[in-house]
Amino acid sequence: MAERQLSRHARSSHGVIDGETSDAIWDVIARVDSGELATAAVLLHNLHPADQADTLALLNGVERRRLLDRIDSHTLAELLPFLTPEELEHVAPDVALPQLTAALDQTTAQLGADVLHVLPEGDVELVLDQLPKAGLVEPLLAHDDESAGGIMAPELMVLGPHLSAEQALTMLRAAAIPTVRDTVYIVDTEGVLLGSIGLHSIVFAPPLTALRDMMEPIGPTVTTDMDQEEALLILQRFGLHSLPVLDDEQRLVGVATADDLLEIAQQEATEDMYRLVGLVDDQALTAPVVTALRRRIPWLLLNLSTAFAAAAVVAAFESTLARVAALAIFLPIIAGQGGNAGMQVTTLAVRAMALGEFDRHFTRLVLPRELMIGIVSGLSFGLLVGAVGWLWQDNPWLGVAVGVAMLGTMITAGLFGLLIPTVLRKVGADPALAASIFVTTATDMLGFLFFLGLAALLIERIA
Amino acid sequence: MAERQLSRHARSSHGVIDGETSDAIWDVIARVDSGELATAAVLLHNLHPADQADTLALLNGVERRRLLDRIDSHTLAELLPFLTPEELEHVAPDVALPQLTAALDQTTAQLGADVLHVLPEGDVELVLDQLPKAGLVEPLLAHDDESAGGIMAPELMVLGPHLSAEQALTMLRAAAIPTVRDTVYIVDTEGVLLGSIGLHSIVFAPPLTALRDMMEPIGPTVTTDMDQEEALLILQRFGLHSLPVLDDEQRLVGVATADDLLEIAQQEATEDMYRLVGLVDDQALTAPVVTALRRRIPWLLLNLSTAFAAAAVVAAFESTLARVAALAIFLPIIAGQGGNAGMQVTTLAVRAMALGEFDRHFTRLVLPRELMIGIVSGLSFGLLVGAVGWLWQDNPWLGVAVGVAMLGTMITAGLFGLLIPTVLRKVGADPALAASIFVTTATDMLGFLFFLGLAALLIERIA
Repeated sequence: MAERQLSRHARSSHGVIDGETSDAIWDVIARVDSGELATAAVLLHNLHPADQADTLALLNGVERRRLLDRIDSHTLAELLPFLTPEELEHVAPDVALPQLTAALDQTTAQLGADVLHVLPEGDVELVLDQLPKAGLVEPLLAHDDESAGGIMAPELMVLGPHLSAEQALTMLRAAAIPTVRDTVYIVDTEGVLLGSIGLHSIVFAPPLTALRDMMEPIGPTVTTDMDQEEALLILQRFGLHSLPVLDDEQRLVGVATADDLLEIAQQEATEDMYRLVGLVDDQALTAPVVTALRRRIPWLLLNLSTAFAAAAVVAAFESTLARVAALAIFLPIIAGQGGNAGMQVTTLAVRAMALGEFDRHFTRLVLPRELMIGIVSGLSFGLLVGAVGWLWQDNPWLGVAVGVAMLGTMITAGLFGLLIPTVLRKVGADPALAASIFVTTATDMLGFLFFLGLAALLIERIA
Repeated sequence: MAERQLSRHARSSHGVIDGETSDAIWDVIARVDSGELATAAVLLHNLHPADQADTLALLNGVERRRLLDRIDSHTLAELLPFLTPEELEHVAPDVALPQLTAALDQTTAQLGADVLHVLPEGDVELVLDQLPKAGLVEPLLAHDDESAGGIMAPELMVLGPHLSAEQALTMLRAAAIPTVRDTVYIVDTEGVLLGSIGLHSIVFAPPLTALRDMMEPIGPTVTTDMDQEEALLILQRFGLHSLPVLDDEQRLVGVATADDLLEIAQQEATEDMYRLVGLVDDQALTAPVVTALRRRIPWLLLNLSTAFAAAAVVAAFESTLARVAALAIFLPIIAGQGGNAGMQVTTLAVRAMALGEFDRHFTRLVLPRELMIGIVSGLSFGLLVGAVGWLWQDNPWLGVAVGVAMLGTMITAGLFGLLIPTVLRKVGADPALAASIFVTTATDMLGFLFFLGLAALLIERIA
């Protein structure tokens, strides 16, 4: 074990970066492909659990089941934590139930709940019947898996307030190994949280000091039904390592840790980035083509219908364009500049919301500021583009039309860039949800309307 | 203290979400504005340090210095960790040096280094001269502040391998309070890392067991000069709580923890989201208008120049457009659809790179897949848009031109969406850097070229 870990370190701490580990993964996959299952199993066993997990995730169902038959429940227990939620969905149902049950008995209750969440209902019952730690796992299943109750670790060090430091250590020695190992939680006889003490402090306190005299008061806590994103915001806002999770009666039922929430922070950031460009559900570049098409096409269809709306504005001015075809040249400039400026503001707003920095004071402060930025940048770009329009087409009135339209478009970009995520959030939708589609539609339609409308008014001077 | 913390909890765990806390912050600011400094200081003192930090960050320089004069070094030490790096840059230089030095003596060495990083050089010397823990802070300053050495915590529990569990506890009792409190690191006489033991295990081991017989082997480690993003990838890949940081001679000099890296993960995700739309440097919606303009305009100028490139393609077909003005109607549809599809792929690629999932195997796997997705979605949208074009303009040949152009644009979107971040990374740039500008330029230019080029070829049938 020691040697395997050392060699893994020497390789993997680089492998992550330069792809050496990934060569080893592809080697195992090649062996499975060519039917050399015994060799594949040995090679797999030499990998770090993180790499073993990657290997299983990259195999197809049939190959994976063949390889899974050759690995023991301990190896399985070690690699399960390294599967992403989406990978777990594909891999877990491929494991034989007795093997899976034996593996789950060697993992945390948190992971047990994650696995059971992706199994068919009948299988969940079968596993829980045989699982010694079912009592710890079952309560987690009752909570939404994106709530604090769904992600918390229930294995804690919990003691009463009247014990001495010495008694506390004796009792902890007899207890099972907890997930959170640096903090002891103090509860009353009902299980209501009273405070906490670092294990460090108990170890180094005078042996007869009572825990109640050493404990730190309760800081921020969360409830089981709180959304995991809110829990993350609280943890970050108050710079904590972990957050106690309480039930409706203030009883301590688990702890959400910085580790768990780091993973969630990454997921949320990924989700926001994806949603901004109209990518929803789990997305990965490695997803099968059909899955990728099914997930991307609906939003591209929405985008297409909004593009037709912008096209309709252009169509309304077809007779103007028929007189001065050169007007069409400026459409991509107005659309491109407005869309980009709008997306900048939307991205800033969506991220500020995700990081918990966006409240009503914020809107009051930011809206006039974005209006000002829109006016100043609109004037600058309007003058520039207007001058180019004049000189390029040798017509000052065309310059006026494109310049004024640019000013209007930049103001539109600032206001709609801010308002669209705000409105999406107000109506209870995700503020990032396809925001790019809505923002660019607004800037395209209004930008074209400003430009072609002005050109139509000035047509006698431009033509 | 206990009561303050409890009332803070009752208020702030909601305040983060619904803005109640932020009312209290704005109240303090209003008092400072109206010169009621004594009241402001009392109100500030009643806030949670996280809210105190927000208050200081929101004040202007003069007001801030007035309020800072009224708060003690202990309060300052408590609030400093809650300032963002950018806020620290503004606030730290406003604090009187003796007050700052006294506060830094009550914070971690990590925070001390962060503060000293933003002070003028002369002041750094003055603070270090007076700071009792200068010996811990100074080594951190020697490292780049985005490297593992710059973010690590140097206050650790470190022991030799020959001690017994009992001796270990006696020695730890006498030591200063460490930042990492759950793990004891075992080093040889040179300071070279040999292994680690959870404090939990030492406490509950038979008292005479030697540490070397209990210690866990070294897992993944990082070196002081490794970039913090790489350290984050390793921590996440291997599911660790903390990573030992070694110097060139394998000596343990600190630990990078999940808490520190959570903050970095958020920063990196924010940076990528911003850079995708051409926002660089520190960006915030609350930045002064002039700062915001200075930061956004250069990239919008780049965008404008690329928009002119797309416009030049349109200009090249001015005579075609002059014969059939209706062609202009389809320009926003081609640009909008290509740009959006391209941004979807680019976002997926940039995020996969940030999460360490993108290597050369990945490109080999993904490129043909995106080509296939481009062809299938291009055919679907091409048929749809072609049919609409035919029926709307009552001309089958216009339908053919717009349909084929849509197919070409969707393939362009998939390939350029993937290649642009890959090329940016290959030349050593940030893959997200203004990727949206490059991707939409490629889809606009090629899309217009396909469409107007085909229309020019078919002009006798379309006109």
